[in-house]
Amino acid sequence: MNGKEEIKRKVAIESVKLIKDGQIVGLGTGSTAKYMIDELGRRVREEGLQILGIPTSLWTSKRAKKNKIPLTTLDEHPKLDIAIDGADQVDPELNLIKGLGGALTREKIIDTAAEELVIIIDESKLVEKLGVNQVVPIEIIPIALAPVIEKLRKLGGKTKVRSVKDTGDLFMTDNGNYIVDVAFGAITNGKILETKINIIPGVVENGLFIGVTKIVFVGYKNRVDRIEKK
Amino acid sequence: MNGKEEIKRKVAIESVKLIKDGQIVGLGTGSTAKYMIDELGRRVREEGLQILGIPTSLWTSKRAKKNKIPLTTLDEHPKLDIAIDGADQVDPELNLIKGLGGALTREKIIDTAAEELVIIIDESKLVEKLGVNQVVPIEIIPIALAPVIEKLRKLGGKTKVRSVKDTGDLFMTDNGNYIVDVAFGAITNGKILETKINIIPGVVENGLFIGVTKIVFVGYKNRVDRIEKK
Repeated sequence: MNGKEEIKRKVAIESVKLIKDGQIVGLGTGSTAKYMIDELGRRVREEGLQILGIPTSLWTSKRAKKNKIPLTTLDEHPKLDIAIDGADQVDPELNLIKGLGGALTREKIIDTAAEELVIIIDESKLVEKLGVNQVVPIEIIPIALAPVIEKLRKLGGKTKVRSVKDTGDLFMTDNGNYIVDVAFGAITNGKILETKINIIPGVVENGLFIGVTKIVFVGYKNRVDRIEKK
Repeated sequence: MNGKEEIKRKVAIESVKLIKDGQIVGLGTGSTAKYMIDELGRRVREEGLQILGIPTSLWTSKRAKKNKIPLTTLDEHPKLDIAIDGADQVDPELNLIKGLGGALTREKIIDTAAEELVIIIDESKLVEKLGVNQVVPIEIIPIALAPVIEKLRKLGGKTKVRSVKDTGDLFMTDNGNYIVDVAFGAITNGKILETKINIIPGVVENGLFIGVTKIVFVGYKNRVDRIEKK
């Protein structure tokens, strides 16, 4: 395992220490979250930890099942005790950009249904301002693609419809929608931008997670820091 | 044809007089819009009117094709000249509640992409305040049903998941989502409520159309009134 992967694994293991018996746990998606799922699975199998997981993507669901983590749904448990997920950028107020993996809507639904949202990242994801060298992914109902793109440009965004690398086909989310990646540059008021994007008809969800994170674990080469919301 | 149907037909015919050669026309859904589609079809066939229609539902698409109205898509034409659609309630500022037919998201995408939104109703739909004896339909990503319902209740709404009368199955939109009908009572600030609903993760769209209508045609027993936005 190379250095970056080892950092992701360490920060994931640290976050899983928070999980207690009886909890309903949101399971994130992505390259750091995958180590979290594996460690949670280890605790379930080796320590007899009793929890129920709610996966944020089909991919996570498969990995959780392979790890023998018992799963449930939001229908059964609309309130989660905790969710652990990765992020693409985290600012000093613990606001996030998420969704490069394409699971942003399910992640937002599940992460915001949790009492505590815990984010696990390596230090490269920590930024002073969201949006610098980072697109905001936006999930869009297919028929609305053209008018939504026009409205996003009016908000100052440079838009790019996401496609699948190998085939060139448009990328499709688990919900059957498209993703547009939008470069806004430095974002000064995330809450207002989040709202402006979400009221555009045809926008399902966007990758700005403002004011919802409680704890962030940051992995460095030789340590893991824990940042809590003030 | 009974009196109410005759009123719907007259108001629909009046609205179609606005349509000019060369326009891109949004085609609404519902019991009044259907007469609009039939009259537009008649003008296309008998008068040689040259337009392209964009339907707001699969149902409307079928009826337009039967009427030989040439159709296009938002991908081809992201900006429409005009859209004509029905509504469930219209207030004195021409704000609307729509979506009892279940097509609210496509209607909102297409209606708000039009230069002019024209609403056709009979007088029973005119109200002093939106929301009195009228639910607001909200389209929701299936997995988010339970947490969204909880958040809608916190906004003061009484919620009911829409089901299909005959089978009892949950009603499914053209986009593969559910509809929750929410009774808020008299709505004092539609814009704020619309925004609060749309920022709930898992909400795709809601049936409040605030500040987007230009002209309303209202059918009475012996006349059709035209109300324009001040």
